[in-house]
Parts: sequence; structure tokens; C-alpha cells
Amino acid sequence: MPLATLDSSMTSRLPSYSQSLFDAKSQKGLTFEAIAQHLGREEVAVAALFYGQAQASEADVDKLSGLLGVPREAIAAQMTGFPDRGRAGPMPPVEPLIYRLYEIVQNYGYAYKAVFNEKFGDGIMSAICFSTKVEKETAEDGSTWAVITLRGKWLPFSRF
Amino acid sequence: MPLATLDSSMTSRLPSYSQSLFDAKSQKGLTFEAIAQHLGREEVAVAALFYGQAQASEADVDKLSGLLGVPREAIAAQMTGFPDRGRAGPMPPVEPLIYRLYEIVQNYGYAYKAVFNEKFGDGIMSAICFSTKVEKETAEDGSTWAVITLRGKWLPFSRF
Amino acid sequence: MPLATLDSSMTSRLPSYSQSLFDAKSQKGLTFEAIAQHLGREEVAVAALFYGQAQASEADVDKLSGLLGVPREAIAAQMTGFPDRGRAGPMPPVEPLIYRLYEIVQNYGYAYKAVFNEKFGDGIMSAICFSTKVEKETAEDGSTWAVITLRGKWLPFSRF
Amino acid sequence: MPLATLDSSMTSRLPSYSQSLFDAKSQKGLTFEAIAQHLGREEVAVAALFYGQAQASEADVDKLSGLLGVPREAIAAQMTGFPDRGRAGPMPPVEPLIYRLYEIVQNYGYAYKAVFNEKFGDGIMSAICFSTKVEKETAEDGSTWAVITLRGKWLPFSRF
Amino acid sequence: MPLATLDSSMTSRLPSYSQSLFDAKSQKGLTFEAIAQHLGREEVAVAALFYGQAQASEADVDKLSGLLGVPREAIAAQMTGFPDRGRAGPMPPVEPLIYRLYEIVQNYGYAYKAVFNEKFGDGIMSAICFSTKVEKETAEDGSTWAVITLRGKWLPFSRF
Amino acid sequence: MPLATLDSSMTSRLPSYSQSLFDAKSQKGLTFEAIAQHLGREEVAVAALFYGQAQASEADVDKLSGLLGVPREAIAAQMTGFPDRGRAGPMPPVEPLIYRLYEIVQNYGYAYKAVFNEKFGDGIMSAICFSTKVEKETAEDGSTWAVITLRGKWLPFSRF
Amino acid sequence: MPLATLDSSMTSRLPSYSQSLFDAKSQKGLTFEAIAQHLGREEVAVAALFYGQAQASEADVDKLSGLLGVPREAIAAQMTGFPDRGRAGPMPPVEPLIYRLYEIVQNYGYAYKAVFNEKFGDGIMSAICFSTKVEKETAEDGSTWAVITLRGKWLPFSRF
Amino acid sequence: MPLATLDSSMTSRLPSYSQSLFDAKSQKGLTFEAIAQHLGREEVAVAALFYGQAQASEADVDKLSGLLGVPREAIAAQMTGFPDRGRAGPMPPVEPLIYRLYEIVQNYGYAYKAVFNEKFGDGIMSAICFSTKVEKETAEDGSTWAVITLRGKWLPFSRF
Amino acid sequence: MPLATLDSSMTSRLPSYSQSLFDAKSQKGLTFEAIAQHLGREEVAVAALFYGQAQASEADVDKLSGLLGVPREAIAAQMTGFPDRGRAGPMPPVEPLIYRLYEIVQNYGYAYKAVFNEKFGDGIMSAICFSTKVEKETAEDGSTWAVITLRGKWLPFSRF
Amino acid sequence: MPLATLDSSMTSRLPSYSQSLFDAKSQKGLTFEAIAQHLGREEVAVAALFYGQAQASEADVDKLSGLLGVPREAIAAQMTGFPDRGRAGPMPPVEPLIYRLYEIVQNYGYAYKAVFNEKFGDGIMSAICFSTKVEKETAEDGSTWAVITLRGKWLPFSRF
Repeated sequence: MPLATLDSSMTSRLPSYSQSLFDAKSQKGLTFEAIAQHLGREEVAVAALFYGQAQASEADVDKLSGLLGVPREAIAAQMTGFPDRGRAGPMPPVEPLIYRLYEIVQNYGYAYKAVFNEKFGDGIMSAICFSTKVEKETAEDGSTWAVITLRGKWLPFSRF
Repeated sequence: MPLATLDSSMTSRLPSYSQSLFDAKSQKGLTFEAIAQHLGREEVAVAALFYGQAQASEADVDKLSGLLGVPREAIAAQMTGFPDRGRAGPMPPVEPLIYRLYEIVQNYGYAYKAVFNEKFGDGIMSAICFSTKVEKETAEDGSTWAVITLRGKWLPFSRF
Repeated sequence: MPLATLDSSMTSRLPSYSQSLFDAKSQKGLTFEAIAQHLGREEVAVAALFYGQAQASEADVDKLSGLLGVPREAIAAQMTGFPDRGRAGPMPPVEPLIYRLYEIVQNYGYAYKAVFNEKFGDGIMSAICFSTKVEKETAEDGSTWAVITLRGKWLPFSRF
Repeated sequence: MPLATLDSSMTSRLPSYSQSLFDAKSQKGLTFEAIAQHLGREEVAVAALFYGQAQASEADVDKLSGLLGVPREAIAAQMTGFPDRGRAGPMPPVEPLIYRLYEIVQNYGYAYKAVFNEKFGDGIMSAICFSTKVEKETAEDGSTWAVITLRGKWLPFSRF
Repeated sequence: MPLATLDSSMTSRLPSYSQSLFDAKSQKGLTFEAIAQHLGREEVAVAALFYGQAQASEADVDKLSGLLGVPREAIAAQMTGFPDRGRAGPMPPVEPLIYRLYEIVQNYGYAYKAVFNEKFGDGIMSAICFSTKVEKETAEDGSTWAVITLRGKWLPFSRF
Repeated sequence: MPLATLDSSMTSRLPSYSQSLFDAKSQKGLTFEAIAQHLGREEVAVAALFYGQAQASEADVDKLSGLLGVPREAIAAQMTGFPDRGRAGPMPPVEPLIYRLYEIVQNYGYAYKAVFNEKFGDGIMSAICFSTKVEKETAEDGSTWAVITLRGKWLPFSRF
Repeated sequence: MPLATLDSSMTSRLPSYSQSLFDAKSQKGLTFEAIAQHLGREEVAVAALFYGQAQASEADVDKLSGLLGVPREAIAAQMTGFPDRGRAGPMPPVEPLIYRLYEIVQNYGYAYKAVFNEKFGDGIMSAICFSTKVEKETAEDGSTWAVITLRGKWLPFSRF
Repeated sequence: MPLATLDSSMTSRLPSYSQSLFDAKSQKGLTFEAIAQHLGREEVAVAALFYGQAQASEADVDKLSGLLGVPREAIAAQMTGFPDRGRAGPMPPVEPLIYRLYEIVQNYGYAYKAVFNEKFGDGIMSAICFSTKVEKETAEDGSTWAVITLRGKWLPFSRF
Repeated sequence: MPLATLDSSMTSRLPSYSQSLFDAKSQKGLTFEAIAQHLGREEVAVAALFYGQAQASEADVDKLSGLLGVPREAIAAQMTGFPDRGRAGPMPPVEPLIYRLYEIVQNYGYAYKAVFNEKFGDGIMSAICFSTKVEKETAEDGSTWAVITLRGKWLPFSRF
Repeated sequence: MPLATLDSSMTSRLPSYSQSLFDAKSQKGLTFEAIAQHLGREEVAVAALFYGQAQASEADVDKLSGLLGVPREAIAAQMTGFPDRGRAGPMPPVEPLIYRLYEIVQNYGYAYKAVFNEKFGDGIMSAICFSTKVEKETAEDGSTWAVITLRGKWLPFSRF
């Protein structure tokens, strides 16, 4: 299976270390799975780090630097800084894979809201106190299924 | 906990049976959880039925009609027909709960894509051969967490 | 000073009880300040209730019903239900007063982010665990100043 | 706590001195709080200066130049000139922290208007004769809260 | 010269008294000039009143009611209330006359800013502490010219 | 008072001579007022020339070249050519000063139309056969006011 | 050949007389060509009258009323009033016939500008002092061609 | 009369030969009229060639190369290739001259459609089997008029 | 298999006969396939007739009227008139089935263009001189495939 | 017939190998048809590869490298990686050829949906398990027709 690379037409929207990380990852032949295991983090979180959408801890930087052979000082300052999130791609998404996720929100948004409200009350599922993961399942008929889990803290609206 | 109702300002975007179903549900004091159990379907799917975003089987109609006391003929034709999906609300969502889901796609879209591609190859997670559910968890510190599971068939791009 | 009324061209975007509440408020000649005092809530919260942007407790409904002379059953179900927020007006706002608030976000958004990040770390100020109030000040030179306070819980991004 | 830095993908929208100031700030290890104290200005105002969204006085330039070690002539002309405001980021904001502020305007805009109108009459809160500050509070339960204060002169609509 | 009337396709965007006022004006055969003289206000201000874009004083309502033969109580509450401004038409304008004004802002916006900044400093011309009028001039060659005057208080940006 | 300069983030939208003219103007320490006097044109027209929004005559180029010390041949061809108007900034404007002008069109557009139509008939005020100027007034109470005059030829719709 | 009728889904965007005129035209079986001949005006102008995009003279109303059998008083006031132009349909057009005209502007806009500028100087072709007509031609090979002529007064930009 | 030149801020949207052609045209002092005569094509078509909106024949390239002194091989491949049309400028147009054409489509679109339908049936005027020209007329009163002719093949909708 | 019905939330965008036709079709229990066979037209064309996106011949109306039991005079005038196309739904489509077609244009648009240009030259495939059909195929492995054929006349760009 | 080339104004949206492939193709004088035959793939698929909208197999890269004389290592990594689809051009398309395909979706989208639903049930035609081809036909009257075939797997909505 080939590795995910960074499309050159995306780099102007991303922090400069994104390109360095993707290049080093390709050269070392490492999957996000392998890097995630090394960092003790979720794969999606690690990919988000590569796209500049998440903050790295000092330990993350140490491990990434060691594993990928990227000089610590080339990435530490920006990666442990404060990400400017939300700019990796256009919305609505034009990429078919990402569009499917958008379509789920479009089609089931109010259904989620109704179910959430009845189960939890008036509030939201946080996208900040939040984690997510991706899993692969094989059904009995041999077909392959993708499973995304979204887990967020429930925040009730304050009464004031 | 109060029940989800249908905001009157939404009805013009939805099929006419939506209002009837929500009204009957309120009158009977039924949650989506109770209705879902009665129908043997997921809560989100049942809420989607109420918003006109999913197709009902003949058996669903029978059970809904019985449980809610809505005349079968008032809802059967349209509910077992072909939903005109995607119109329950605006995109980007203005409702905070639904916006959080949109934000997850915005922030993690390319991270999901990278992880999916490395795990599954070039393709998409289907939003059609797809199911979803909502669960409630209580953490050790007593805090409440919402968990959404998205499960879709993996579809590789055809080679042609 | 006249009372705030509901522009008839807005009603189609709001729940049906909005009009009833505004009408009763006008007839009783009550300010939001008076109603807020009666309910023990903030003025902005009470106005948000009137626009269908916040949830009422059972006690709120009791007090509102009594104070305004609106039959409890005409408003209780929807007001204690789950608001469909975010639809009171267009964004960007066309109303000059509301536009000024939007402009503050536009002009100072990244400045707030930089200051927040340095003071609090990587996270957001919640708009859900949140309260707000409006105050009036008179400066020494006799000029009048408006003060808005926004107070939200700080939510650090989860590490996962 | 790390310092706020300037995402390289933002620089094309900002005046050229922004990058120099952020770089010097990082090298000197200075927070906006420290710089604000040195300048006798609010933190948000100083961050706005760095993003090119506010005008510097001659004294500001002197102090900034001294504190940060940036040659006066490299920044004086543009910083004491007339900012071209409003271009630091897209609207609606895609950054989660900034989006929350936008959401407050979206959800409570008409509530603010109604309360303002009843308290002050027909007019607006100026975003020009205006100041703002950010504070950090710790609640009794140890949780952290962010407080933004917006203070603007009240401008009644002229009668003509 | 015919009188300005209200296009029926606009009424849903305007307060309900707009239609009554325009109808009465037509029936009485009154121009905005005549009404403005009667009210002692500018023509543009009076037309703005008719479109629900400006606030009427009690005296304005008395005079309008008398002049137009509209019952005072049919218009007083809403007209002396707080206008929900900015919704008379779409932006960018599709009406050619209004588009020309928009085009002036588009073409000369930065030129105005540069000249204002040099003449007045860092600030804005208020659109709230503001008046405007329209005049008709005949040039020596007999051609007709329209003159719009915009007069707004200069508001310097606060230093904070 | 500082001089207006050209924000570097704007140059890609403007003709190449804009930067040269602004630079020379700064170096010579000249205001638009001084240059306008030298050219015998209105300040706004001269600023529009600098932003590439108006056409220069041969005499304008001679005088500008002499006054600013910019070689004639560096600017003559493009400045006496045909401007590609309307691209100096985004619409709706994000700059607060320019937004206020836009807001005037948004709020008073239909009021202007009604008054114009009654005074002039069915037509438009030209934005081409057009001039504009900016003036500064000091009111009796010492406050400063900005006055913009827009003067355009009245063009009646042709009957065909 | 059938007659042009008014799609019922358009009527809410048009003045109320539009429907009456189209209905009467259908009942009388009259083409725009016939009506235009009767009024001594161009076909496009007459169709524009029907869509509320042009002003009728008193004589037009007399002739229309007579020819179509519509009571004069039902249409006179609005038709001789001031049209609120530009709202017959969305832009970009979704109707294929109208889209082709839009596409011509999109593809050849700058080519027209370059040719106009060289032939006429710096200015515009007026869309107000303007007439247009549609003609039908049959080529030698029997194919049918449509010819639109646009004729507008040339307006040079004023020097000020 | 000056020649049309290429605004440098447009070049990134156009094929690379556009700049070369405009530069050579300026150096030779040739109008589009002169070039059109040399090529035996319409002026608008030639200007469209310069903007990369039309395809050149081999003979066009020969003649252009000779007349303008541009090496054949620098322009032949791209100019005789397949234009990527529609990108010369934004829509809606911000350039006043081009906007007027857009406004004609906006105001008269449905009028054209109604007249076309009655004269030709259900179909469109092709923008592909299409030619256009610009002419200059002087009216009796000495005023100057621009005339655009659009001639397109009539294409009836297929019945299937 | 249920029949396609008309979602009530769509009717305001469609001509009034759409609802009548869909209702009659449901009552008679007729598929588009059966109706198409009766009319001797393609299924897609017939469905387009029902949505008001295509013109009916007199014979179509006769046959439809007879088959569906809808009075001829209730539908003849509008159905044989000139459709106002392109308004059945929003673009980009929110309905998943229709979005997939849009996505094909988005993903393969330039690939189609390149292949068309090399095979046919500089031109377009007409969407007017055009037909389309839908077929169902069963693959060897029992899976079901949908096949859409688009057939349009090739129109080369005119040389002028 | 000339070959399709890559417009230089598009390259920033495409992966870097696109330009290399198009250049080599031009130099070798190869059509997409010839390349497709060499690769044993459809022409549209090969053009999509060139635009970075499809994934290449190792064998594709070998053959392309050999046929076009492009070093294998310059293109292998990115071409066998995971395309970032959907960014070749704007939507709605401005290119006339691509717009016609968009218009077909706009005009016939709901007709396709109705026919698909009746023939296949509630689901979609996949754009992923999908192939497409372009053919050229000559009608009896000598006219040229383009035929596009879209073939996608039918995916029924899951019941959950």
C-alpha cells in the first residue's frame, strides 16, 4: 500500500513544517499507524499534526524528530505552538472521501440533534474535549468496512 | 427530559408527514429511543425518518402508525417513497450542535483521508452503505460523554 | 423609551411563540430588564428566550406566563424544548448594531486568539458553558458607553 | 506556555512588518502580556498591532523597537500609518476559537439588539470608540474561565 | 411625475406599516418632498421611514397620521420602535439605480479611505451620527445632475 | 498626520505603478491634497489614480512625474491607458471605513431610489459622468464632521 | 407556435400586474410581436413591461388596456410608476437560454472592453440610454439564426 | 487614443502568451482594429485571442507573428490549442464597462427569453455557433453610441 | 417497488401542473417506464416533463391526459408552453443521488474536455441538441449497475 | 488536430507531475487515445491521470514513463499515491464545454433521480465504483455527435 503524501498544491495553506514531515515520512517509508504507535497517540491525531491541525507536546517533537530524522529545531517551535486550525481544505469539501463525511452531517444533522437532545438535554457534543479514531472491519462476506468513532464531552448550555 | 419537537420554521423544508409524526410523538410522550426499540432500528435512523431523510419499510409504517396513532394512509405513500435528502437545514450549519460535527469534518478531513488511504487504499467510506449510532458514556469523574459511531462500506475507486 | 418589538418580517424564521411573547410584553408595557428581574435571569438570556435562542425552565415558563398573561400551555412545550439556534438573522449581519459585533470578531479575531493562547494554552472559550450581560456606563464627560461581558469556560483541546 | 507565532500561510494577508515583529517576539521570548505592560496598552490592542489591525503611536514604535530589538526604521512608517483592517482571516471564521465568538454574534445578535435598544434607545455600540480586554478567572471548583469585555461608546442614530 | 410606490414583491421584507403608508401617500397624491416639508425632515429620512429603515418620533407619527389619514394607532407602536435595518433589498443591489451607488463604493472605496486618513487620521466617517440629502441641479447646458451629500461625524479609533 | 501608504498585501490586485507612486509620495512627504492642488484635480480622483482606478491625462503624468520624481516612462503607458476598475478591495468591504459607505447604500438604497424617482423620474444617477469630493467641517461644539459629495448626471431610461 | 406564459413559481418576484397581463395575453392569443406593433415599441421592451422591468407611459397603458381587455385602473398606477428592476431571475441564470447570454459576457467581457476602449476611449456603453432588439435570420443553408442588437450611448468617465 | 494594455494583476489568470502579445502590440502601436483587418477577423475575436478566450488558426499565428514581431514558436502551440475559456475576470463583473453588459442580462433576460420563444420556439441562441461585433455610431445630435451585435445559431431543444 | 412522488417542499419551485401529474401517476400506479412507453419517449424525458423541465407536444398532452385521467385543459397550455428550466433543485445538489452526478463533472470535467478536444476539436457537446437515457445492467457477479448515456451534437466554436 | 495542453494558469491547482506529463505528451505528439491504448485504459481515465484526478498503478507508471520518456522516479511516488481529487477547476464551471455537463445535472437531476428510484429503489449510482467513456458518432446527415457513457454500481441505502 502506498503512503499518504502531501499534494504540492496544498502546501500554501499549511504551516511550513508539513512538507518536511511528509517528505521525511515518505523517505523512511513509515505509515501513520507506525508513527502513532511510536508516539502513543491515535492515527488521526498524528495525521492532524502533520497537517498543522493539532498541537504537539515536547515529547511528541522528540519522538517525531528521532523517528523521522528531522532536526528538532526545524519543527519544535511551530509544532508546539498554537495551530491555526480549519484551513487544510475548502468547505464544502471537493475531495470525494471528505465530502462523504460532510454529507453525513448534511443528511443526519437534525437527526443527531434530536437524538442527542432527548438523551442528554440542551447542549452540544464538544469538538474540543474530543477524540476520534478510525478502524477497519471485515464483514462475514469478506467486504471491508470503515468505522469512525467520534467521542466528545457533553456540554449543557449554561443557564444565565 | 423534554422531547424533541419540530420547530415550526423548519416545516416548509420538510415533507408534510414530518409535522404529523412529531405532533403524535409529543402527544404520546414517546422518545426516539422508545420508538426505535419498537421498530427495531437505530435511534438516528428513526429520527431521520421523522425528518424525511430516510425511507420507511411497510413494516416500519405499520409499527409507527400503531404506536403513534397516526392513520396508516396519511403517511404510508410518502414514507415508503423515495426521500429527497439533504434539505433539513442550511450548510454550513447555524445550529451549534450540528456545527460541531461540521467543524470536525473541517478540522480533521484531510487527517481522516490520509489515515483511510494508508489503511484501505484509494477509495471512500460510503455514506450510503452506512449506519450510525449515538451512545452515552459516563467517565470515571462523572462527566458525560457522547459517542457517535459511523460505519460505512469501503469502496475502492474503480480502475477503468 | 419605547419597547423592543418583533419585526413582522422576522417571524417566519422564529418559533411561533416568539410573536405571542413580544405582543404580550408590549401590551403589559414590560422591559426585558423588568422581566429578567422577575425571572432572576440576565436580560440577554431573556431576550434570547423571546427569540427562541435559549431554553426555558419550567419555572421560567410559570413566571413568564404569570407576568405576561400568556396561557402556560400555549408556550410551555416549545419553550422548554430544544431550541433550533442560530436562525434569528442573516450572517454577515445587515443590522448596523449587530454588524458592529461581527466587525469586532473580524478585526480582532486573531488578536483574541493570540492573547488567549498565551494566557490559557491551546483551546477555546466555550460559547455553550457561557454567559453574557450588557451594562450601561456614563463617562465623566457625560457620554454613554455600552459594556458587553462575555464569560465562557476555557476548554483545552484534548490530547488523543 | 509557548508563545503565539505567526502561521506562515497567513503572511500574505498581513503587512510585512507582522512577520518581523512575531519573529523578534519569539526570539526575545516575550508574551503579549509583557509587551503590553511595557507599552502601557491592552494585550488585545498589542496583538492587533502585531497583526496590522491597529495603529501605533510614535511612542509605541520606540518602545517596541527597543524591547524587541527591531530597527525603528523597519517598522515606523507602516505601523504609524493607517491600517487596512479586517483581513487577518476569513469570515465565517474557520479557526475554532474565533468561530465561537462569531457564533455568539449569530446566536445572541438580536437579543443584544433588543436589550441595547431598551436600555439606550435607537443606536449602536461603536466598534471604533471602543476598547476590549481579556481576563482569566478561576472558579471555585478550580475550573478556568475566560472573560472578554467589550466597551464601546453608545451612538444614537441622528435625526435628519 | 408619478409617485414612488411599493413593489408588492418587497413587502415581505418590510414592516407591515410600510404598505399602509405607501398606499395612503398614493391616495393623497403626496410626494416625499411634500411630506418631508410637513415633518421638517429630509426627504431621504422620510423615505427611509416609509421603508422601515429609520425611527419616527411621536411628533412624526402625529404629523404623518394627520397628513396621510392613517389612524395613529395603526402605525405608532412600530414606527416609534426600533427599526430592524438593512433588509430593504439584496446586496450587491440588483436595482440599477442602487447598484450605481454600490459601484461608487467599489471603485472609490480605497481612494476615500486614503483621503480621509490623511485629512482626519485613523478612524471612520460615522453612518449613525449621519445625515444625507439629495439635490437636483441643472447645468448650463441644460443637463440635469443629481447631488447626494453624505455628512457623518468623524470617529477616531480609540487607543487602548 | 502620517501619510497614506500602500499595504503590501494589496499590491497583487493593483497595477504595478501603484507601488511606485505611493513610495515616491512617501519619500517626498506629499499629501493627496498637495498633489491634487498641483494637478488641479480633486483629492479623491488623485487617490483613485494611485490605486489604478482612474485614467491619467498626459498632463497629469507630466506633473506627477515632476512632482514625485518618478521617471515619466515608468508610468506613462499604463496610467494613460484604460483602468481595469473595481478590484482595489473585496465587497462587502472588510475595512471599517469603507464598510460604513457600503452600509449607507444598504440602509438607504431604496430611500434614495424613491426620492430620486419622484424628483427626476425613471432613471439613474450616473457613476461615470460623475465627480466626488471630500470635505472636513468643524461643528460649533468642536466636533469634526466628514462630508462626501457625489454628483452624477441624471440618465433617464430610454424608451424603445 | 405557443405563446410565452408566466411560470407560477416566478410570480412572487414580480409585481402583481405581471400575472394579469400574461393571462390576458394568453386569452387573447396575442404574441409580443403583435402587442409591440400595437404599442409602437420593441418586442423586448414590451416583454420587459410584462415582467415589470420597464416603465409604461400613459399611452402604453391605454393601448394595453384596450388590446388586452384589462381594466385600466388595475394596472395604470403600478405600470406608470418606477420599476424595481433586476429581480426577474437569479444570477448566474439557471435557465439555459439566459445562461448563454451570461456566458457571452463571461467569455468576451474583457475583449469587448479592450475593443470599446480603443474605439471610444475610457468609458462605458450605457445600459440606461439603451435599446435592444431581437431579429430572426435564415441563412443560405436554411439554418435559423438569432440576432440581438444592443445599442447604448457611450459615456466617457468624467475627469474631476 | 491610447491602446488597450494588459493589467499586470490579470496575468496569472491568463495563458502566458497573453502578456507577450499585448506587449508587442503596444510596442508596434497597433490597435485591435488594425490587427483584425490584417487577420481578416472581427475585432472582438482578435481581442479574445489576446485574452486566451479563442482559438487561433495556423494562418492567424503566421499573420500575428509577422505583424507583431513575436517568434512563431513562442505562441503557436498554445494559441492553436484548446482555450480554457471563461477565466478572464470575476462574475459578477467588477469592471463598470463589463458590468453594464451583465446588467442587461439581469434586467432583460426573461424578456429576451419570452420574445425568443415566441419567435423561434423552445430552444436557445447558441453562444458557440456565434459571432459578435462592435460598431460606433454618431447620432444626429453628435452624441456617440456603441452598438453590439450578437448573432447565434438557433438550437431547438431535441425531443427524446 | 414504490413510485416516485413529489416532495411537497419542492412544489413552490415547479409549475403548478407538476403536482397534478405526480398525483395522477400515483393514483393510477404508473411508473415512468410505462408512461414513457405510452408516449414513445425516453423515461428521463418524461420525468423531466413532470418536473416542468421539458416541453410537451400536443400529442404528448393527449396521451398523458388519457393515460392519467387528467383533464386536457388543466395541463395543455403550460405543458406545451416554454419551460423555465433549471430550478428543480439547488446547485450544488444536496440530494446524494444528484450530487454523485455533480461530483463526476467536478472530478472528470477537465479530463472530458481534453479528450473531447483531441477527438472533436475546439467546441462543446450540446446540452440542447441532446438526449439521455438510463439503463440497468446486472453484472456476472449479480451486482446491479446503472448506466447513463448522454448524447449531444458536437458544436465547433465559430470562427469570426 | 492539435493536442490538449495544460493552461499555465491551472498548474497551481494540480500536482507537479501534471505539467511534466503534458509537456512530454506534446513533445512526443501523442494523443490521449494513443496513450490510453498503450496503457489499456479508457481515454478519460488517462486524461484524469494527467490532471491528478486518478491513481496510477505501478504498471501505468512504467508504461507512461517508457512511452513519454519521463524518468520513472520523477512521477512514480505521487502518481501511485492518493489523489487529492476535485480541484481541477471551479464549480460552477466557467469553461463552456464543462458547463454543459453541469447544466445537464442542473436540468435533469431530479428526472434522473425519479427514474433511478423507480428502476432501482432508494439508493445512488456510485461515482467511485464507476467508469466512463467518450465516443464519437456520425449521424446519417453527416453531423457529428458526442456520446458520454457513465456506468456506476447501484448502491441501495442501508437500513439501520
